[in-house]
Amino acid sequence: MSAIRAKIAGRALAAGDRLPSIRSLAASMGVSPSTVVEAYDRLAAEGQIRARRGSGFYVAPTVTSPLALSEVEPRRDRAVDPFWVSRQSLDTDAAVLKPGCGWLPPEWMPEAALRRAVRALARADEGLLTDYGSTRGALVLRRLLLTRLADDAITASIDQLMLTGSGTQGTDLVCRFLLRPGDTVLVDDPCYFNFRALLRAHQVKIIGVPYTPSGPDVARFEEVLAADRPRLYITNSALHNPTGATLSLPTAHRLLTAAAAHDLTIIEDDIFGDFEPERSPRLAALDGLNRVIRIGSFSKTLSASVRCGYIAARADWIEHLVDLQVATSFGGPSPVATEIIARVLAGGGYRKHMDELRQKLTRTRRDVARKLQTLGIEPWLMPRGGFFLWCRLASGQDATQVARTALEEDVVLAPGNVFSVSQTASAFMRFNVAQMNDPRMWDVMRRALKTASEPIDRRGLRRSGL
Amino acid sequence: MSAIRAKIAGRALAAGDRLPSIRSLAASMGVSPSTVVEAYDRLAAEGQIRARRGSGFYVAPTVTSPLALSEVEPRRDRAVDPFWVSRQSLDTDAAVLKPGCGWLPPEWMPEAALRRAVRALARADEGLLTDYGSTRGALVLRRLLLTRLADDAITASIDQLMLTGSGTQGTDLVCRFLLRPGDTVLVDDPCYFNFRALLRAHQVKIIGVPYTPSGPDVARFEEVLAADRPRLYITNSALHNPTGATLSLPTAHRLLTAAAAHDLTIIEDDIFGDFEPERSPRLAALDGLNRVIRIGSFSKTLSASVRCGYIAARADWIEHLVDLQVATSFGGPSPVATEIIARVLAGGGYRKHMDELRQKLTRTRRDVARKLQTLGIEPWLMPRGGFFLWCRLASGQDATQVARTALEEDVVLAPGNVFSVSQTASAFMRFNVAQMNDPRMWDVMRRALKTASEPIDRRGLRRSGL
Repeated sequence: MSAIRAKIAGRALAAGDRLPSIRSLAASMGVSPSTVVEAYDRLAAEGQIRARRGSGFYVAPTVTSPLALSEVEPRRDRAVDPFWVSRQSLDTDAAVLKPGCGWLPPEWMPEAALRRAVRALARADEGLLTDYGSTRGALVLRRLLLTRLADDAITASIDQLMLTGSGTQGTDLVCRFLLRPGDTVLVDDPCYFNFRALLRAHQVKIIGVPYTPSGPDVARFEEVLAADRPRLYITNSALHNPTGATLSLPTAHRLLTAAAAHDLTIIEDDIFGDFEPERSPRLAALDGLNRVIRIGSFSKTLSASVRCGYIAARADWIEHLVDLQVATSFGGPSPVATEIIARVLAGGGYRKHMDELRQKLTRTRRDVARKLQTLGIEPWLMPRGGFFLWCRLASGQDATQVARTALEEDVVLAPGNVFSVSQTASAFMRFNVAQMNDPRMWDVMRRALKTASEPIDRRGLRRSGL
Repeated sequence: MSAIRAKIAGRALAAGDRLPSIRSLAASMGVSPSTVVEAYDRLAAEGQIRARRGSGFYVAPTVTSPLALSEVEPRRDRAVDPFWVSRQSLDTDAAVLKPGCGWLPPEWMPEAALRRAVRALARADEGLLTDYGSTRGALVLRRLLLTRLADDAITASIDQLMLTGSGTQGTDLVCRFLLRPGDTVLVDDPCYFNFRALLRAHQVKIIGVPYTPSGPDVARFEEVLAADRPRLYITNSALHNPTGATLSLPTAHRLLTAAAAHDLTIIEDDIFGDFEPERSPRLAALDGLNRVIRIGSFSKTLSASVRCGYIAARADWIEHLVDLQVATSFGGPSPVATEIIARVLAGGGYRKHMDELRQKLTRTRRDVARKLQTLGIEPWLMPRGGFFLWCRLASGQDATQVARTALEEDVVLAPGNVFSVSQTASAFMRFNVAQMNDPRMWDVMRRALKTASEPIDRRGLRRSGL
């Protein structure tokens, strides 16, 4: 990096000049090509140089105005921490393939219904286009949500429901309401990586409970409740992220019994619930929204751009959470966003869209699983629905290394340890079957798997129950 | 309340029955009419009875499904705390008049430009309608913002800027990044009430510095910095909320000198900046976004429904704030929202809209000030721009009492103490001149002022410098 910087500063390399090829610079400096790639990527992130796809790196134009700076790309050298997958998959451009990301491709989303809803929005009352809206969010959408909760056997009244800027924001509000720095929080191991990121922001102690095909390991769950007195447990019951497993009814009952005995509150994030072929038990249904808080959103099924989530909980908690949302966001979610969501949901096409999506995903899961098996990659289980496959790599391959190598060729993977509190999922990887259609992705995977060589921490894996 | 409840429970009053008139029930129970109004309002909030405008109260239909419940209205009896104005003005219906609220009526907003932008959105790429978008928010809008910052003499590069879900959310993210429970934070006295609500959520100690017509009282500011070592100061420099005052250049210089000596960080919330006739000094411009963080949004000038705010700060802080926004909201603001904002801003009509708005507001401020003076209400100063008038009531009148009385007649006012950390603004009230066109509002005000009788706390007022 300093060699290139010196050449640019000394005008040996001027704006628009092509930089030495990676191979030639590696050879002349006696370093590995991946070191040069990393240096070039960092210089590009700093705005000093620019990458042109398929053509190499060039010195960036001399910056006289801050406007001339290119967008900051995510730093590829950042630690493979809970932010790694989100930053890489949110911030890289459309040419980067993202089998590691957590959402469907645009063409799988209900595009026509969204466009219809946006056109109708253009004719809405001027107040809807300009005003803040109510603090709990649009009544019409909350009413629609109550009927959807009833489908999950969750009986709630309208004052037990509030809309939020996103599902994540809903979870965050609940954490702000319930947690103090130093509290202990339980998560599944593995769990959705952003639960870990969120809980870090709350400065709490995180304990993972090994996840089994029917839910968390109940014996361990009970042990941790007795020993560590956690304040909160965050989980997905239906189509657990990343494993795709489903909570069984007996496990749900035992969890709630233990929770009641130790006054534990549970956040049940139902973000993938609509992808289930048949409805599975919900903790919120068994408990009756007493100590269980239901979180949901439409980002996976309808649109992640039109952002809106919700919280269903005890009415007195909702009252406090509404105040907290006013204090921290001034009001509820964008009325424009909730109007679009409500129109698509009420339009009648949503059920058909989800039916088709579920069928398409059933085929795609099977096809992708078969293809992964030819690479020695085995699904931990075949999920009942959704778009994730939680897979074990062939023995001897380290998922983090595979992900780093693939990223150099513009493929974002989701290595197991970003999901694991105990860091015992180094042999695992989460695949998004809907994002694996491009043959280039499979070529990159094949090469990355070949170069991966670090041994798996077998002891650790046994310990985590994976 | 229990008398009515008993009648409903005992079927003496059935669904759809009209309740006794307020006057007759007050007479028969030997209580004041306002006690009956309060009881009816609470029963309505509980869903037991319904108000029909101009026709009285009726027993609500028997609820068999939670769907049949009416929307929960804000509780009118809640304490006049920092949430009072926001909850009352966000959650009451359109028939309630809101001279206390902090936004313009829909007909003052650029409706045609918004509709054009929404129609264009209906034709946008499917990815824009369905994907999460980048963590810093749409590049096109960030570039537009850089040119607008340059108008305020603030030089920033693209990596010093991120979009957020709202201006408040931007402030909240910065607070999460900088503050720990127990820290001390400085605000102006009076200040925007939601700063107080937000800081409560962060569990910090809040100290107010009296605000003068040219900014905070600098001598007091320096004293507090030396004695209490606050971590943060939150302010509006241009068109301060609620006073409409403007920070002077010498005061800005002294504030920054003191801030540097005591390593104080400053959040400069510029939400009303575009309402200024000519640009006044910004702390962020003098400081060069070193220890000053600029927050902004489009909720006051363009749309509060299409929500989007931004943070401009040191690049290394932005990097952390982006992670924090991913952890707590999963990503930046809605791409749909930022696309609408960017289209309106780039459309060229925005400058003309703001020119017209400023002229209209100049006339309206003058007319409303004159009208208020006929009620004995005197503006503390005539602001250079914006829609607020911070006014002193005639001596002997308590603003909180006036606001409570007016609320009984469906008029939301903003009593001084919701803005005051020291609770020394009981003789003051903030008026939104754009929301005072309805003659009914003036009748209600006149009556409410008449019934107000509590003496002003003169000592307190002198102490606060007001």
